[in-house]
Amino acid sequence: MLSVHLENGTVSIREAPMPSRPKGFALLRLVAAGICNTDLELQRGYYGFSGTPGHEFVAEVAESDRPELVGKRVVGEINLGCGRCTWCLTRTRRHCPNRTVLGIKGHPGAFQEFFTLPESNLHSVPDSLPTRHAVFTEPLAAACEILDQAVIDRSQPVAVLGDGKLGLLIAMMLHAQGHSVELFGRHPGKLRIAAEAGVATRRADAVLPRSKYEWVVDATGNPKGLRLAVEMTQPRGVVILKSTVHGMVAIDTAPVIVDEITLLGSRCGRMEAALPLLESGVIPVEKMIAGEYHLRDAARAFERAAERGVLKILLRP
Amino acid sequence: MLSVHLENGTVSIREAPMPSRPKGFALLRLVAAGICNTDLELQRGYYGFSGTPGHEFVAEVAESDRPELVGKRVVGEINLGCGRCTWCLTRTRRHCPNRTVLGIKGHPGAFQEFFTLPESNLHSVPDSLPTRHAVFTEPLAAACEILDQAVIDRSQPVAVLGDGKLGLLIAMMLHAQGHSVELFGRHPGKLRIAAEAGVATRRADAVLPRSKYEWVVDATGNPKGLRLAVEMTQPRGVVILKSTVHGMVAIDTAPVIVDEITLLGSRCGRMEAALPLLESGVIPVEKMIAGEYHLRDAARAFERAAERGVLKILLRP
Repeated sequence: MLSVHLENGTVSIREAPMPSRPKGFALLRLVAAGICNTDLELQRGYYGFSGTPGHEFVAEVAESDRPELVGKRVVGEINLGCGRCTWCLTRTRRHCPNRTVLGIKGHPGAFQEFFTLPESNLHSVPDSLPTRHAVFTEPLAAACEILDQAVIDRSQPVAVLGDGKLGLLIAMMLHAQGHSVELFGRHPGKLRIAAEAGVATRRADAVLPRSKYEWVVDATGNPKGLRLAVEMTQPRGVVILKSTVHGMVAIDTAPVIVDEITLLGSRCGRMEAALPLLESGVIPVEKMIAGEYHLRDAARAFERAAERGVLKILLRP
Repeated sequence: MLSVHLENGTVSIREAPMPSRPKGFALLRLVAAGICNTDLELQRGYYGFSGTPGHEFVAEVAESDRPELVGKRVVGEINLGCGRCTWCLTRTRRHCPNRTVLGIKGHPGAFQEFFTLPESNLHSVPDSLPTRHAVFTEPLAAACEILDQAVIDRSQPVAVLGDGKLGLLIAMMLHAQGHSVELFGRHPGKLRIAAEAGVATRRADAVLPRSKYEWVVDATGNPKGLRLAVEMTQPRGVVILKSTVHGMVAIDTAPVIVDEITLLGSRCGRMEAALPLLESGVIPVEKMIAGEYHLRDAARAFERAAERGVLKILLRP
């Protein structure tokens, strides 16, 4: 089968053996996958990654011990918990200290014709939800995680910094959930997608409001984003950190302490929260798709995904 | 009257005119004051401060439009709100954007024979509470602020990093409030004070536990403290930032995001919370007093307070 291999920054295509299917795992046949910024970071070598990346996907269940799953279109939770620790048993496997992560850490990813995931990680894709849209389940779940972590009063506007893929999904998700959102970005074309969905958009190259918002989401992916976010937050407000930035970020902790600001780290979320939102069609993810490539053209697809201003690139087997 | 003056890092003594007493303000006669790390930072020039510092004090009310206050021993809230903004009117003047701060910003401090504060900032010191102990009201209130900001389950141990003045007060306050505390420090003599009050103490030069605590307080006053605190915090745990560190602090935001850790800035607190604790005698602040100087020896007192290992230095008129 065809498999994307990433090593030392180089994306190559390999003919790989079919993966074996451990007990409790389903064998999945890829239908479509999305390239995420994390994949580009793996390519840049941030995690010493070597192997098959890919964690945003729609697949068809090819084999499973649960016959009702076979043939179903599914998406899947990317964290594989050990199933035995306190986190797995009583809280969430997403924080299992022994976890592997699909296409990121210790478990081969979705950029190949076949791969595996535990059956308990899978979620059926509703028939009415197109595959191209269902590919957004994982990143939209990460956006939804914000509302699982924080009780945000709908009377309080939320500022979202960054009009990349995640910033757009966060802004449109919050708007769809009844929150008043102001999205700050630098790309008119991207801001337009959110604006057409009803989000108030602002050009981030203007002077940014200071100490204004009770809630600010940093989705800039930029080391300066956190500082800007803190400046925009009012005393006792909350900055939600959605930006993975590599290496050390220099922050001035004094305003965080003086203004008693909360910084809240936020990562993956529940697919149960994302799927109904996608199914309802209120989040125009179709407009976020910048192109679709065959798996064998993954190297070109990665190049395209890394270009400035390009949103979601899909891969198809 | 005698007044301490701080400018360009130099502490000098001046003969100053008696301060005028605006409407709503009391004229206060200093009884005793404490030198805080913030005063040492003012001396180091971090805020371009020039004037009379001092914000930890016990005073006697010399003049007031409220006759019942005159002659009373008082401590005082250090933030002077404008009294007209939303913060002052509906939340707390401690975050008034127009505030001045006693001995720190825009309002002459307590290191002089007489100074002023709004009558509404004053709290009577209970008769049974010695002046030497009541001087700790302001820093203990800052420690108590933690429990006003966070609901900490008493079944969860709290790690406190740093055995300086604030770290000790935080650890002993949490212990007095029924929390299980582990205090990490490098000074056996300081750790002993907390240990004698019942706090479990740990030498911070050993290997620190990783991902262990749901709650970690950084009171190290050290740029590395935040990184250590994050490492010690379990996923979805909280790091309370009690350390003012100057300049930029380099942090790796990746573990904050991956482990969904909350960083909570924390500053001044309610004196109403601190006074009963001091009165009850459960916090052995007497042991934290390293020396007492006359106001006219303020320069030497500042030198002493800045020595490694020295805890609270008091000033008396």
